[in-house]
Amino acid sequence: MINEFIEIVKEAGVIFKEGFYSKKQVNLKGKKDLVTNYDVLIEEFLKNKFKKFGYSIIAEESTKEEFNNSIIIDPIDGTTNFFHQIPHCAISIGVYENKKPKFGIVYNPILDELFYAETNKGAYKNKKKIKVSEFSDFGRALIATGFPYSGAENKDDLNWVVDKLSKILPKCQDIRRFGSAALDLCYVAEGRFDGYYEINLKPWDVSAGIIILKEAGGTISNEKGSGFNMFEDKCIVASNGIIHKKFLKFFND
Amino acid sequence: MINEFIEIVKEAGVIFKEGFYSKKQVNLKGKKDLVTNYDVLIEEFLKNKFKKFGYSIIAEESTKEEFNNSIIIDPIDGTTNFFHQIPHCAISIGVYENKKPKFGIVYNPILDELFYAETNKGAYKNKKKIKVSEFSDFGRALIATGFPYSGAENKDDLNWVVDKLSKILPKCQDIRRFGSAALDLCYVAEGRFDGYYEINLKPWDVSAGIIILKEAGGTISNEKGSGFNMFEDKCIVASNGIIHKKFLKFFND
Repeated sequence: MINEFIEIVKEAGVIFKEGFYSKKQVNLKGKKDLVTNYDVLIEEFLKNKFKKFGYSIIAEESTKEEFNNSIIIDPIDGTTNFFHQIPHCAISIGVYENKKPKFGIVYNPILDELFYAETNKGAYKNKKKIKVSEFSDFGRALIATGFPYSGAENKDDLNWVVDKLSKILPKCQDIRRFGSAALDLCYVAEGRFDGYYEINLKPWDVSAGIIILKEAGGTISNEKGSGFNMFEDKCIVASNGIIHKKFLKFFND
Repeated sequence: MINEFIEIVKEAGVIFKEGFYSKKQVNLKGKKDLVTNYDVLIEEFLKNKFKKFGYSIIAEESTKEEFNNSIIIDPIDGTTNFFHQIPHCAISIGVYENKKPKFGIVYNPILDELFYAETNKGAYKNKKKIKVSEFSDFGRALIATGFPYSGAENKDDLNWVVDKLSKILPKCQDIRRFGSAALDLCYVAEGRFDGYYEINLKPWDVSAGIIILKEAGGTISNEKGSGFNMFEDKCIVASNGIIHKKFLKFFND
């Protein structure tokens, strides 16, 4: 079944790539959250193609059906990058059965990087098996993060971002902020990043990435170290597993 | 002359690309500043090739001759990304005569993105003319920054980073931290980013990027708004020009 999904995602990737290099119509959903005509177009394309599988659909720009046997769609993760023609954005598809992860696909059509994983079958990038890094020294770890749009209006969220950055930055190799949660998780999965944290993500941002990272040997939790619930938890902490305990300390001191 | 330099940089790009996909030897220059065997290899290659032009050489990993008629070399800008196989790193070459900018070249061999500009002749990416964005609303501006390695030991620098982030982040579209000053400047030059700021850069990080950005119609200054001196100024503020005045306020309030 995953192969059929991959073919559909690649077809959607053609629209994505065309949109990336075109002039786009853009609107604001909140104070900062951009949506382009291509977000809508790609989502509609995917929803139509996925109809025949009989799963409920949870999609960023439209349908939010009940979560059980579900396909969770982010037509463009990293819309701001997409709009600015920065080649760090992706289609994200997470498929769940009885609320349990079945498989995930994250595809960056611009760099032609296709990440995917089925539960208990390992994680892959362009057909090559991937695994997390082996860094154990937090001082050498390259950490990714994201900045929640809510920080523009919510002082608590902005303070959280600033507080964590001021604590983690001097203790790790460096921090990156690339602008796509789905790809950040895949970058941890293939060992480009050693860890990743962010608040206020939505299920479509992470539904695929967390499956891929787990299958690549990584660890994902909330800030307390418990299993991460993408519908309920505010904070995600992800890593190669080796540095996880050290990493969690920054969120609990 | 620039074409001869571009050919040399492309040759160096072959070594760069080979290194990017290989296992690398890595050492630390400071507490955080990485250097790989490929930084040294590419720098030696370039220095040998550039010898015949009779310019003084200022190169990140070795020679620091007097600045006048000079070639300023960064063999790998974004070494941490290079080491982690993140395709956001580049060779940077700035050429100056009588201390005045003559031309600059920034080449990312992994994505095959070649940025270059000669003074008064415009800026180009892969032979296509580039120019800065036309965003005038700071609230829609995508801003890049970097985090100085000094922040690990110097509290003032860390506080500066945190203070600026906390002020700028809620007021712009978003902030990116990609990890290569040379490419950050080129991304402003082609309109992917609308602005960029950082402290504690070295001449080789910016010698080429500032020429390219100026030729693309951008504005570069120190935090006071005066002309940026890459040997003396602590802070660089770069933008599409339109938002510059608004941008500078964050550094002077």
